Amino acid sequence: MIIVADNLTITNPTIAAAMDNMDPGPIQDLVRRCEKAGAQAIDLNSGPLNRSPVAHFSFLVETVQAVTSLPLVLDTANPTALTAGLDICRNQAVINGFSLEPAKLADILPLAKNYPADIIGYLLRPNGHVPIEADELMTTAVSLFKTFISEGLAPDRLIIDPVVAPLSWDNGLQHNQALLAVLRSLPDLLGTPVRSIAGLSNLTSGGLPIQRKAALESAYLPMLAAAGLDMALVNVLHAPTMRTALSSRALLGNGIFSWAQIGL
Amino acid sequence: MIIVADNLTITNPTIAAAMDNMDPGPIQDLVRRCEKAGAQAIDLNSGPLNRSPVAHFSFLVETVQAVTSLPLVLDTANPTALTAGLDICRNQAVINGFSLEPAKLADILPLAKNYPADIIGYLLRPNGHVPIEADELMTTAVSLFKTFISEGLAPDRLIIDPVVAPLSWDNGLQHNQALLAVLRSLPDLLGTPVRSIAGLSNLTSGGLPIQRKAALESAYLPMLAAAGLDMALVNVLHAPTMRTALSSRALLGNGIFSWAQIGL
Repeated sequence: MIIVADNLTITNPTIAAAMDNMDPGPIQDLVRRCEKAGAQAIDLNSGPLNRSPVAHFSFLVETVQAVTSLPLVLDTANPTALTAGLDICRNQAVINGFSLEPAKLADILPLAKNYPADIIGYLLRPNGHVPIEADELMTTAVSLFKTFISEGLAPDRLIIDPVVAPLSWDNGLQHNQALLAVLRSLPDLLGTPVRSIAGLSNLTSGGLPIQRKAALESAYLPMLAAAGLDMALVNVLHAPTMRTALSSRALLGNGIFSWAQIGL
Repeated sequence: MIIVADNLTITNPTIAAAMDNMDPGPIQDLVRRCEKAGAQAIDLNSGPLNRSPVAHFSFLVETVQAVTSLPLVLDTANPTALTAGLDICRNQAVINGFSLEPAKLADILPLAKNYPADIIGYLLRPNGHVPIEADELMTTAVSLFKTFISEGLAPDRLIIDPVVAPLSWDNGLQHNQALLAVLRSLPDLLGTPVRSIAGLSNLTSGGLPIQRKAALESAYLPMLAAAGLDMALVNVLHAPTMRTALSSRALLGNGIFSWAQIGL
């Protein structure tokens, strides 16, 4: 399981200010800390980019790749900004992301044809809603996969995100349980091993203290890992979460266990 | 998932001394603390009981049931002691346990016919060794189950323990991964839902600091839970482990999530 840092996001006020002022220092400092903590890729969550999207997203990509050679997950809903980011990205890039929503199929999916980047596909209904039951998650995965390959794209470039739901939703618990079953059945369902990614922070969205979030995230992450999750988007600067991620990876790895694998 | 305290064991020097001296105080204090911490059953691990097994095990059962009405898991390899414990146990009792080893089939399994107690069945070869591959674990589960019902015992009285292996074994990692697959397939394999139990402390046997053990146990426990484990034998007095157990249970529960479920 590859550990992707979710730390570089404009929901962090320091990062939001640095983006606004195009000040590379705080962003590069954070990226260095994430890499040192064990991140194997960095998500660049710039938000909607209402103002000068091209200039701001290009600044962000350039700022980050100046200090790391890790793969970068280009995470914005703005297709113009995404295109600008892909134009200048020298690191391995992942487009984040498309879904069966018509606007995403029209504006985001085609970028995977024009750039040598992998792309994240969200298991969302065409109306953008999250399917709750396992059956609908599976039919959505099949539709997404068929749409993807019908564009002539190779299956190994797709990374499916089954969308972790907030537990505060009435049916969030049910969805997140179905999600585990769907992850386990994806290879059989699609007839080929397609990669998967999930963002843990959704599980406990809202302004809760990190300890409360962490207890649940640290229980759900190993479940996702054992269900076959390939990439986990986590707070790599929270030591207990990182220990859980590294321990999960070690427990599911090949060969002989060693403590060095989990940095303990 | 039912949380069983593994704390009451003679590997704890305080408990060993209290057992030797038949001093109920330290034992009852520990039991009270375990129940307060959220234990839903208590394992009474008396060790081999070489000296006065009947007197010592009877003392242990009586001492514990004087302060709790929780189910008691009677955990000794000594059949005479087990019989004495079952004779006086007023709480719900679980016999821990039998396997396909000839001595266990001869001396332990018959106790399930004579007493209204559930019984733990270990997935061990007749020679007492741990099967490593999933295939052999599954055939062992089938043999154990067939042997059990051939004695006229009802399937709902059996609790299968697939035996977590120490990661320090060359093939411990491989076994513990196979174990997850076997747990998931048990209902299909046996054609009926049979309960399961696993002891986490085996994972990191040896004199390691609790923090190092806890990181791995807290990653493996949610994997076991999501694979369908019914009962987890854990250190209920280690707060992070308990948070993981309660969070795992909440994430796999029915209905709507609430923070009260995990005591946070």
